[in-house]
Amino acid sequence: MEKVCFGIDVGGTTVKIGLFSDGGKLLDSTEIPTRKEDNGSHILSDICSAIEARLEVNNLTRDDLIGVGIGIPGPVTKDGTVLNCVNLGWGIIKIEEKLSQMLGGIMVKAGNDANVAALGENWQGGGQGFEDLILITLGTGVGGGVIIGNEIVTGSNGAAGEIGHMPTVTGEEASQCGCGKYGCLETVASATGIVREAKKLLEKSSEPSVLRDIIPFSCKDIFDAAKEGDKLSLEVVDKLAYYLGTAAASIAAVINPQVIVIGGGVSKAGKFLLDKIEENFTAGAFHACKNAKFALATLGNDAGMYGAAALILD
Amino acid sequence: MEKVCFGIDVGGTTVKIGLFSDGGKLLDSTEIPTRKEDNGSHILSDICSAIEARLEVNNLTRDDLIGVGIGIPGPVTKDGTVLNCVNLGWGIIKIEEKLSQMLGGIMVKAGNDANVAALGENWQGGGQGFEDLILITLGTGVGGGVIIGNEIVTGSNGAAGEIGHMPTVTGEEASQCGCGKYGCLETVASATGIVREAKKLLEKSSEPSVLRDIIPFSCKDIFDAAKEGDKLSLEVVDKLAYYLGTAAASIAAVINPQVIVIGGGVSKAGKFLLDKIEENFTAGAFHACKNAKFALATLGNDAGMYGAAALILD
Repeated sequence: MEKVCFGIDVGGTTVKIGLFSDGGKLLDSTEIPTRKEDNGSHILSDICSAIEARLEVNNLTRDDLIGVGIGIPGPVTKDGTVLNCVNLGWGIIKIEEKLSQMLGGIMVKAGNDANVAALGENWQGGGQGFEDLILITLGTGVGGGVIIGNEIVTGSNGAAGEIGHMPTVTGEEASQCGCGKYGCLETVASATGIVREAKKLLEKSSEPSVLRDIIPFSCKDIFDAAKEGDKLSLEVVDKLAYYLGTAAASIAAVINPQVIVIGGGVSKAGKFLLDKIEENFTAGAFHACKNAKFALATLGNDAGMYGAAALILD
Repeated sequence: MEKVCFGIDVGGTTVKIGLFSDGGKLLDSTEIPTRKEDNGSHILSDICSAIEARLEVNNLTRDDLIGVGIGIPGPVTKDGTVLNCVNLGWGIIKIEEKLSQMLGGIMVKAGNDANVAALGENWQGGGQGFEDLILITLGTGVGGGVIIGNEIVTGSNGAAGEIGHMPTVTGEEASQCGCGKYGCLETVASATGIVREAKKLLEKSSEPSVLRDIIPFSCKDIFDAAKEGDKLSLEVVDKLAYYLGTAAASIAAVINPQVIVIGGGVSKAGKFLLDKIEENFTAGAFHACKNAKFALATLGNDAGMYGAAALILD
């Protein structure tokens, strides 16, 4: 009988729980709601109950379990401590120690969700086969993770991979970011930021655009219009690709990755977006770092589950 | 009898050779010229001869030697291969293997000189006691190194730590870098770049400045004048500190280091410069990465020798 592990991705709304074979195959997955009431104090016990249930359904016992990997939407230090995860209502929790105790001593490894997703893409996704990579996730916000030598770079207080908060836009062009700063990469490269940039441009210019007839338009509408040649939409996408490609060139000068993986909802724009980012990257990158490949993330919302399992298996 | 190792820093003009105790104490150091003629084919045999001589002078034999660490002014891959070191006239050389053979099988570890210097500062310099750091060296150019978990981040083709080539200045303000690109950090933060920026400003403005009476003025003159309150010089220093602090904030968002060490000739401007860089860093850094400390490098030109020894001992 082969051994198994769990890869768990704790989100603000649901907890995704995957059961993996020790060979890395996803055998079974389920979702439970994230109960944030009472300062999120039920979340870990809900996870333990779900683990027991999934073991039983799959005719397994705790003896078959190698360990549990878990991704958390907040900073997690190298020693497995969550530092104030406001998304879950948590303060400081030694999560590896605590969850392990609750599971009768089973090994638990924890990481920040975006970093863990990067490890997932490294293990079985768009960055498979490369030991040094960065993942940039373009969603409601912009997140990311850095993998060096097939391992997560955690950072001195669990805040490595915060690519969305690289200072990027300066002067009057800079919008305020959710973090309070002005001009973070997230303000132009997240779905929210892309829509805001398009709105700003529509107000400023009298250029005709199909966006003027879509109320309200989404980030997808902008990419669809750009692909059809809508000039104003193209301008928005080109700007985003410039900032993103240039930020990637900065990162490349520092850590010289083999591959830059682009994920998140915005990455559904596919090769159209990827090519534009790569073009700007190539223009901005130092010659010795220029040969980094670009790839789309392939695991989608399961990247966190895979990466959490990789904390145990890889 | 304690064991020893050599830490060797190969520069474009001289090779610095340090003999270290296994406790990390520098026992003896010497310099030999870097013979670049004949495609640098004498360099390694010159080093071997110097090693034999230093052992003899110190009443040691090869049996006392744990290994030899060596820093090279060009990209060195993880497997110890130098990729086209134009500074020395070298093509592709498996340096660890080759030098080890020439030394009768003694362990050899090689790295890029700037990365190795960062390891030196991590081991016994301004970054001592911190496992995650970056070194930014402000000299004729701008170099650097990234240390994570007390180890050098080499990058996928030995080009990590090329901080001087982060795309930084945009638009008309951007000057051409030695690497061919426009607007690299090096164009504003190297000694050469600082002098060029001051010259540009002197031409553009009619602001009185003591620099107008110093012909030709040096980077040190600019800092000295800035410290005395010379407005134009202050403007140059503030600009450099802005770009450097902002680049450091970008790096911090990606790898979240504990400490950022500033070295190289320009860093002789000391706390005056460091405080200005830190101020701009704090303004640009993501809150979770903001607590990185700033420190001056302390090993000066010996950082490479120390770091090379650390490749063996640390």
